This record gives sequence, C-alpha cells and structure tokens, in this order.
Amino acid sequence: MTVRAAVAGASGYAGGEVLRLLLGHPEVEIGALTGHSNAGQRLGALQPHLLPLADRELQPTSAEVLAGHDVVFLALPHGQSAAVAEELGPDVLVVDCGADFRLQDAADWEAFYGSAHAGTWPYGLPELPGARAALHGSRRIAVPGCYPTAVSLALFPAYAAGLAEPEAVIVAATGTSGAGKALKPHLLGSEVMGSMSPYGVGGGHRHTPEMIQNLSAVAGERVTVSFTPTLAPMSRGILATCSAKAKPGTTAADVRAAYEKALADEPFAHLLPEGQWPATAAVYGSNAAQIQVAYDEAAGRVIAISAIDNLTKGTAGGAVQSMNIALGLDEATGLSTTGVAP
Amino acid sequence: MTVRAAVAGASGYAGGEVLRLLLGHPEVEIGALTGHSNAGQRLGALQPHLLPLADRELQPTSAEVLAGHDVVFLALPHGQSAAVAEELGPDVLVVDCGADFRLQDAADWEAFYGSAHAGTWPYGLPELPGARAALHGSRRIAVPGCYPTAVSLALFPAYAAGLAEPEAVIVAATGTSGAGKALKPHLLGSEVMGSMSPYGVGGGHRHTPEMIQNLSAVAGERVTVSFTPTLAPMSRGILATCSAKAKPGTTAADVRAAYEKALADEPFAHLLPEGQWPATAAVYGSNAAQIQVAYDEAAGRVIAISAIDNLTKGTAGGAVQSMNIALGLDEATGLSTTGVAP
Amino acid sequence: MTVRAAVAGASGYAGGEVLRLLLGHPEVEIGALTGHSNAGQRLGALQPHLLPLADRELQPTSAEVLAGHDVVFLALPHGQSAAVAEELGPDVLVVDCGADFRLQDAADWEAFYGSAHAGTWPYGLPELPGARAALHGSRRIAVPGCYPTAVSLALFPAYAAGLAEPEAVIVAATGTSGAGKALKPHLLGSEVMGSMSPYGVGGGHRHTPEMIQNLSAVAGERVTVSFTPTLAPMSRGILATCSAKAKPGTTAADVRAAYEKALADEPFAHLLPEGQWPATAAVYGSNAAQIQVAYDEAAGRVIAISAIDNLTKGTAGGAVQSMNIALGLDEATGLSTTGVAP
Amino acid sequence: MTVRAAVAGASGYAGGEVLRLLLGHPEVEIGALTGHSNAGQRLGALQPHLLPLADRELQPTSAEVLAGHDVVFLALPHGQSAAVAEELGPDVLVVDCGADFRLQDAADWEAFYGSAHAGTWPYGLPELPGARAALHGSRRIAVPGCYPTAVSLALFPAYAAGLAEPEAVIVAATGTSGAGKALKPHLLGSEVMGSMSPYGVGGGHRHTPEMIQNLSAVAGERVTVSFTPTLAPMSRGILATCSAKAKPGTTAADVRAAYEKALADEPFAHLLPEGQWPATAAVYGSNAAQIQVAYDEAAGRVIAISAIDNLTKGTAGGAVQSMNIALGLDEATGLSTTGVAP
Repeated sequence: MTVRAAVAGASGYAGGEVLRLLLGHPEVEIGALTGHSNAGQRLGALQPHLLPLADRELQPTSAEVLAGHDVVFLALPHGQSAAVAEELGPDVLVVDCGADFRLQDAADWEAFYGSAHAGTWPYGLPELPGARAALHGSRRIAVPGCYPTAVSLALFPAYAAGLAEPEAVIVAATGTSGAGKALKPHLLGSEVMGSMSPYGVGGGHRHTPEMIQNLSAVAGERVTVSFTPTLAPMSRGILATCSAKAKPGTTAADVRAAYEKALADEPFAHLLPEGQWPATAAVYGSNAAQIQVAYDEAAGRVIAISAIDNLTKGTAGGAVQSMNIALGLDEATGLSTTGVAP
Repeated sequence: MTVRAAVAGASGYAGGEVLRLLLGHPEVEIGALTGHSNAGQRLGALQPHLLPLADRELQPTSAEVLAGHDVVFLALPHGQSAAVAEELGPDVLVVDCGADFRLQDAADWEAFYGSAHAGTWPYGLPELPGARAALHGSRRIAVPGCYPTAVSLALFPAYAAGLAEPEAVIVAATGTSGAGKALKPHLLGSEVMGSMSPYGVGGGHRHTPEMIQNLSAVAGERVTVSFTPTLAPMSRGILATCSAKAKPGTTAADVRAAYEKALADEPFAHLLPEGQWPATAAVYGSNAAQIQVAYDEAAGRVIAISAIDNLTKGTAGGAVQSMNIALGLDEATGLSTTGVAP
Repeated sequence: MTVRAAVAGASGYAGGEVLRLLLGHPEVEIGALTGHSNAGQRLGALQPHLLPLADRELQPTSAEVLAGHDVVFLALPHGQSAAVAEELGPDVLVVDCGADFRLQDAADWEAFYGSAHAGTWPYGLPELPGARAALHGSRRIAVPGCYPTAVSLALFPAYAAGLAEPEAVIVAATGTSGAGKALKPHLLGSEVMGSMSPYGVGGGHRHTPEMIQNLSAVAGERVTVSFTPTLAPMSRGILATCSAKAKPGTTAADVRAAYEKALADEPFAHLLPEGQWPATAAVYGSNAAQIQVAYDEAAGRVIAISAIDNLTKGTAGGAVQSMNIALGLDEATGLSTTGVAP
Repeated sequence: MTVRAAVAGASGYAGGEVLRLLLGHPEVEIGALTGHSNAGQRLGALQPHLLPLADRELQPTSAEVLAGHDVVFLALPHGQSAAVAEELGPDVLVVDCGADFRLQDAADWEAFYGSAHAGTWPYGLPELPGARAALHGSRRIAVPGCYPTAVSLALFPAYAAGLAEPEAVIVAATGTSGAGKALKPHLLGSEVMGSMSPYGVGGGHRHTPEMIQNLSAVAGERVTVSFTPTLAPMSRGILATCSAKAKPGTTAADVRAAYEKALADEPFAHLLPEGQWPATAAVYGSNAAQIQVAYDEAAGRVIAISAIDNLTKGTAGGAVQSMNIALGLDEATGLSTTGVAP
C-alpha cells in the first residue's frame, strides 16, 4: 500500500514532527505541505532538520492544495479544522492534531475554548479501553493533547482496576515545544533556560477537561483532576507525576498487578521494571511512553509517573499510530520505541 | 561588629555558596576554609567563581583549624557534624547546613538515615511560627533542607489558618546542584540536559519527615505528605507545587487573606500579586522565596507554589539569615532579594 | 555622595542588569525608570527578579521624566541616544549602553549601521591604555559592545607588547541574552536549547569595526579581524577564543610576561594561573573577565581566551565601572568579582 | 543479506549510539553486547532509551563472546582494540570507534597517546578523496574522531581546490557526550549547564594530528592546525568554525564553486544554500553534516562551518556508513539525514 499524505501547518513544531515520522514510514509518500504566513517559503529555511524535504515549497492551506491525498494531517490553530475537513470529503482520512474534536461535552468545549463545539471524532489514544475499535476504519481522528496522553497512560490502569479514588492530583513538566513556535517573551531562550515555572494553575488549562473525560470513562465515575502544568528548560518531553488516594484495602501488589495487566500487550506504553523510573531523555524522539507506579503506604496514595516525548507520542507519533490503525496497517509501522540519548 | 567565620566543607556547592554570601556580608571576615580530599588545594581551582578567595588554601577539617572563630559553618556529609560541634565548644555559633540536627523525632531520623540520632537544634527557617525566638541568641542552628524550605514556606500559611486538610501532595523540581558535587552517572551533564526525571518516589526521600514535622507543628495535627522530587535540567532552583484539599467552607478570598497575613512582614518570603506565578529564574542567587497560591474550586484544592534558589534561601542564605538573628544583627544583613536574570 | 540615577529602557536585559547592579551600589539612589511599549506597567511584571523594585511603574522615555538625575543610563535601540542626551544637558552624566557613540570613524558607522554618525564619546573600557584618563570627569560615556569587551581584554596585552601579527582570528560564543529580549523565532527556547549556531559570519557583525578600532589603537598598526560569533545554549556569558600569529622570535615566556604585566593591577581583568582556563559559569553575574593565554608553538600562534558575563562586564557592569571613574568614586564601588555558580 | 553484529562497549555513549542505529538497520541482526564493569547488568538499566534491547544482558568483552559475528564494533578505551581485533581473525569486519588505528604516523601516535602505535586501518570518512576505495571490501575500519570528522568535512573542499593557505585555525564547540560517560567533576550537569569553557588549548588535543593528516593529504602540502575545542552546554553536537587565509587571487565565487563541486554527490555532507548557516540542532540524531562557507574579503579568509552530531556522523553513523561500504551495501542503508528537532 502507498498512502499519499498531506500536512497542513508544516512549518510548526507539530507539523514538522509529523513530517519527520512520515519520512521514515515505509507506506507513506509525502504530498502537499501547506502553511499560512510561511506559504511560498522553502521548507529548508523553516525546518532545517528535515533535510530530505529542504527544497519543498510551502503552499497555502486550501481545499485545492489538499485535494487528492489519502490522508491529511491538520496541525492548525484550534477552530480551523472543521471547515478544512468538510471540504476534504468523507473518504479522506483526516487526522486532526488540534483540539477541535477531542471533547465529547459541548459545554466543556465552550467553557474552555470560548467558541462553538465542532463535534467529536474517534479519539487517537489506542491504549484506552475501546479506542482501537473506534479507530479501525475511521476516516476522522482526533489526536489527543500531549498532557492528556501522558496523564491518561499513567493513570488509566489504576482506574480500570478500581484501585484509585476519583480525585487525581497531577503535576506535569513539559518542554517548551509544547507551547509551539509562538513568539512570546516567556518562551525566549533567555527566559526558559535555567527556569522552572508553572502556568494555568488552578484548573484553567484546556487539557483538564480532556483528562477528566478519559479518566472518568475508565473509572466509571466522575474523576476530578487538579492539574498543574509547568514549563521546564528543555525542548521536548513531558514528565507527568500523577497520584490519587488508594481505595481502601489496596496493596502494593494490587497496584503492580493492575499495571502489568493493563500494559502487558501495549507496543508503545511500557511499564518499567520495579525500581527504575522514567526520564524524558529516554523517550526523546521515540513513540514510547515509559511508565512506573508506586504505592506510598504512609500517604495512602498511588503514584504513577509517565515520560513521553510531547511531539512524538504526545502528538505526531500518536497521530501516525492512529492512522496506521485506521488504515489497517500494523500499528507500529514507521514508529520506534528507541529514543535519541544521551 | 566583626564576626570571624570558618567554613568546613568549602569545596562543595553548599560551602561555596556560604562563601559567596559571606564575601558580601559587611560584618563578616572569612577565616579558615577546610576540605577533606581537597585539603591543600587552592580554592581558585575548585571554586573559580570565588575570585577574591582564589589564592586561599583549603586546610583539613579539624578542631585546631576551626578554633578561634565566632561562627563555624558546617557543610559536611551527614553524620559528621556532632563530633565537630562538640569540639568547638558551646560559645561558638555552629551553623549546620547538613541534616543531623533537623529532626525532633529520633525514630524518624533512624528510619530515614539509618544511624543514631544526634539531637535537635533550633531550626533555621525564621518564617515559621516561633522560629525567630528560638534562633535569637542561640549558638547552634540546624539549617533546613532545601525542599522543606520551599514546601514549608508554600504551605504553612494555609495550615496556620486552618484552611487545608492534613494530607499534602507535593511535586517539586530541583536543579542538579541540590544533589551536590557527587560523581554519579545520572548527574552528568549529558544525562541531565534535556531530561526531567523523578527519584525517591513513594515516600522515601529523606526530606519527607522534615516536611511532616514542620507542617504538623503549624497545623496542630498530624499532616501526611506525599512527596515526589524531580530532577530538572538546570543548575539551581526549586519549584515546589504543593496542594491539599481545602477544609469545607473555604473560599478563594479566605486563601488569599491567609497568605497575605502570614507573609506580610517577611523580608524573604514574598507573596506575588494575583495572576503572577513564581519562576526559579527570578530567584537565581537571591535569598527570596517567591510564592503564589490559588484555590481550584472544581477540584476543591488549595494550590501553593514557591520558587527558591536551593543553594541560597534553600541552604546558604537561610544559614546566613539565621546567623544574623542568632547574633543580633539585622536579619537581612548581607542578603538580597534580587535575583540574577535572565 | 548620593547619586541619583535614571534608567531609560528598564524593561530590557541591559536595563534590567543596570538596575540589578545599582540596587547594590551604596552611592546610588534609583530614580526614574522608563520604557517604550511597556510604559505604565509594574516593573515586577517585566523583571520579576528585581524584587525590591517590583512596585515601581515604568514611565515613558522623555526629557521631563529623565530630568533631575545626576546620571542617566540609556539602554535604547541604536540611533536614539543622541536626541535624548542633547535634551539632558552637558552636566548630567549620560552613560549610553547602546552603540551610537562607540566608533570614531564615521564611515565605519555608516557602513555597519546605515545611518548618520552621531559622534564619539569617551569609551567605557577602562582597561585599555588611556581609557581611564578619558573617562575621569567625563559627562558622556559610550559603553563598549559585549564582544569587543571580551575580545579587547583578551588580545590587548599581546598587541601592546608587540607580540602578535595584525591579523586576529576570533570565534566567540554568546549566551542568548546578548541578542536582547527580541521576539525572533531563532531565539525561542525550543530553538536554542541543545544548539550551537553561527551568525553574521564573514565580517558582517557590527562589533567588528569596534574590535578593529580597539586593537589597532593598541597595536599602533591596522589590525584586521576575522570575527565569527556563535549563539550558545545558555542565557548569559561570552567565551571569546582569540588568536593571531606570533611575531618572529616570540617565546611562551614573552607571552606570559606580557599578560602578567598588562593585567597586574586590573581589578576586573584577571589573568588565571597557568593551566587553568576560563569558563563562563565562573563569571556569571560578576564584573570580572577571566583570561588565559597560551603560545602554540607548532601553529605559531598566540591564543588568548576570555570569559565574561555579557550583561555584567560586557554591558551594565562596564557601565557602572565607568560611571564610578567619571564621578571620582572608587572604580569597584558596587561591583563584584564573585560569580554565581554552579 | 543479514549481518550479525556485536558491540563491545555497549554501555557507553558511542556503543549506545551504534546500537540505536543498528536497531534501525534493515540488514543487521544485533548479537552480543559486552561491557567491562557493567557486565551482567540489563541494558535497560544502563541505556533506557534502547527499549527494544532493554532485557538484553551485558556480557564480558572476550574473544569467545565476540566470536561468530560478521561485524564487531569496538567502542573501547584507546589501546585495547588491537588485542581484540587480533583474536577475531581477518574475516570478521572490525569497526573501531576508538583512536588506535587512525594515525599513519607512529611518532604522532606516540607523542599524543604515549604508547606504542598499533598500526593504521582504512579510514572511515568516505567523503575524503580516495577513502571509499580503501573502505570497499575492507575488514578493518578506523572510525575518525568526532572533531576531525567535522573539521575535515568543512575544510577539505577548500584545500582540494587549492584555495587556502596551509595554516588552518579552528575553534569547535562540542556537546558533553563527546567526553564520554566519564565521572569527572567538570562534566557534572551543575558545572556544564550555563557554561562554555575551552580545554586542550594550544595544540594539545589528541585530534589535532588527525586533522593535520587529513588536511595535508588533501592539500598536498603540510597544513598546520591551531585547534581550540570548547565544551558547550548541550548533550550532542559539534559546531566547527574553521578558517584559513585565502590563496592570492581567490574570489567568493571560486570558494562557492569549490564547495559545490566537492559536495555535490555526497549523501551525508550537505552544502546549505547561500545565506543559511548550520546549527547543531538540525543534525541532532542525524548522519548529515550541514556545511556552509563564506569568503571574508576584509580579512582575506575562507570561513567554513560545519555542524554534525558528534555521536552520529561523528562516531556511530560514520561507523555504520563505512560498514555499509565495506560490506557492499548501499552506503545510506539504515542511516538518515533527518534530525530530531526542535
């Protein structure tokens, strides 16, 4: 099979990472690359690491340019995907790396994004119960947010096994690429190097309702989430430290067994051996999530920690993994669990 | 007043920071500098940033060398301070930057450090209720751990006001200097740059009982602490994200008022204006803690975040601040709330 | 003496560093702080590390606001200083951290900056032969560029002693704060972390004619300069690697002797002991330049390397040092040779 | 073809990178992995990014363990390769990532390494004139040093075209992985983050004679090299800034033409379009060298700059590229010119 793929938003970090992965995907041929303010420029000037595509020119994002592809990846500002998808027709596989179609609850969308809800697409986190079935054969995929990917993979085994109380407390550190290629003072190198800082504290981050949605579905009850994201002095990576009180009677062995069972067959969600903890460096450029869990008896809490590359498993790798499922390819095609380290 | 001060352990990070601050302290004259394996070396070869002391030679750590000073700062591996202090006599002010005399409960000490408890000295975190009175005139000071400093300053106002349930959840990121100048593979630059990683997960970190001790004393009830430390790719700084469920009936205004009241007159614990969050870069080299608090109504939690420089307010600055109090100097002498940024 | 000082351009990196140093200067009282697009904002929102000034409000940069001060520091975009200085009158000490008055040759100015030459002021690098005399009592100071500071301090001893051929080759690495708080994609944290990159290669950097001016004056002949600046993944610091062929007959002992002689009495230009090389970390936040020199016999070249903090000795520290001289204060008042490390 | 490959020294940075590349090589099956002090440990504990090999156990480095492979990669301390190679016999392809067989001149070896010269093997920098022919069918390969790779690729076109005087001046910045996983204080994260520092200044670096050997062979005359390496605050990457006086009569067009001609058909040495300069981030994890050149007319110098990943093109990628040639495979098999960025 040769799949012809276009990428809308090819000059940003998400679009660039999609291209990096597609360059190594044996079944994909890269078609149109589009941009907005950068249309007309050589990709080599914008993404100098994508050397094989250096002489490709960005075209404007339009239905004409995107027509004629089997798959179209959208890496656009939120609110723009619905219109593009509609023009592409129902037979094209549209993989939206943005937020537009992730939430099921329109009220949540409106509260956190301030615009009308565009709808809900099959959710591209195959590891969640039921997700693969929904993705198989689908022609629309909503790629999860990077934080919800890290957090859901860390906590779903505990909720699936009924071991955790429905009040999760999450503190996550992200590399700066999670904020995109945005020209904001606090994202300048001089500001971020040597600094850790929180943002969106107190429930305001837009990824919070997505985490609640995922964890509640697995738990079978409403899970509240206290989520504090922090910006770390690194380009890539998310380390999510997630905890919840253990349900009465839970033992350390129960916790370990639940995670071993939930992650046993997952190609990209890896439970580390006991005693080894995840580090973002180990998943740099990799599609793997590395996960560890502990039971703190004195505090009575289950503590699960995951490390992912926010641009790979957290965005573009999750997108390609879900595309593979939708198209009936082997789920791991073109994806690797090997990181680039040190 | 001219105070003659010696520093035992001058080649390490804590000792170096004590010296950096003493060089700017108008009432202190720097006397003997000692080391262990580095005795006999020029300080300039070990601490090239301390240019005014470059030609000073490290002497061995012994009672003879340390005799004849008004103040002796100990920056030694844990377990070594008691013997040195005993030889110095009761009239010398001994400021221990190590852990030996921080804990009140001998069982806690033995459980976490695996040796006999040496005793308890007045605790060098002046911001805690009652701490200044205990420090005034004292000739022994136990400098707090860096994490307990950051965490206690962030959470004590909530517990002092009775606003928080006695189950604290803390995730903190530290710069690598917090681990000392130890030759361990995971502390190599190649390993830490670009990486976030947790350690001591599940209650095992030695600073946990110290946090419990501080918060419980303020709360008037036993507070459990779930503490997850993480190593961040920066040299200095701690960002502590601390939360607890709010007691029933708590409002956002209650929380703000409690913090404003508790920190109003503190020279080195600064509550930021609403909407501004702390960043470790802003306290680089400064003795200030920058603190912010929020009430997450949906999750029902008080979230308090502090940023400190682990070597300054978290170690050497706290030591000098407490020395000032013990000696009857103005508490802020030789200390600054200005950071070096960007 | 109490000197009342204003800072125009207080929201940028240079202006912020001037303020950091003035906060520790015992003879200075900080007066008006001005900005352009940031006028009306709290300084605490823009420079959160300057805690003692957090509640000060930025005023617009105007003659009225700047009037009534003894010293005015200008940290403005190039081309704007002349007009401001004229309005302040001849009795106010104007310290220009910008480029406008550094170059003696109007043609050089026009070639590199593309506008009319504003004139030449006494040059604020006191270590250069004759510079102190010109600064003493002056009411106008042109603060050198950061690279010319590092390069001139590294090479002037060799040229003053007639040991080096007049063809210097310089490669320097700078921290990103050298580029200012400019919102450009290549300065984003995601781009600079983990990356070294050159810019202005082949003679195009605006600091090149300033280096030629300084070295030629010392050498007594026209010195050509091949200058390649590179951007390093750090916030602060310049490491300048400078070399030139040795004049025939030069020995290693000649080179060492020349540097010892030239730097013997300098408070802020420090020749390291043989065998120890400078590192930017050792001068972080310090006004010291740390310098070392070697003679490579096989290649026949003198290699001199200096490390400075681009914002301190390279900008604001040099400015304050020169102000001290101009005002008849001790040259080192309010300045330190102690760095913040690790 | 399936090639069975062993890696001796699999716990270090070079060995780890060889394994990362072999995991993606379609013709290679990974056999024995050996270590010294780490023998008996799981690879997952030492190289957590190599997830597909996590459960492999390190064996001791011995002839028995390494027997039965088609290719053996040696990533050993210098001086150890000869003995191992001898035991493996002449039919096994031995790829030495160490220094032992790089130099042709025994006196050079003895002067810089202080031991007896082991010999000279075909040199694994295929881009140099004549190198591919020597590698084809060879069963011994000496992988170049990382600095000589970066420098030789940057300068050989100028010397091949006779445009440059035989006195090269080189300043290069390396990521810390270039120093290996060595437990030395100056390699600690706390020391390297935020710092640039030189080392081996004045001709002492062991890569100097290798550069002289390569450039002299291309130039047809003895080229002297002034080489200053610097340590940069990043894990990977080399940026080499290389210059030499232009021979009389050289024009900018001559320089451009020489580089276009020399690099036109190279799969892994890429001349950037005019105006675009290399950055190490763009070659992170990639086997490409990105190269640019300028002619500085005022200084009369050719300035060539290259960026490589020191572990990929600079070590393991160069090793695999040379292995491919030796085995008659397509030179690019298993290698990519795509970097991981941002």
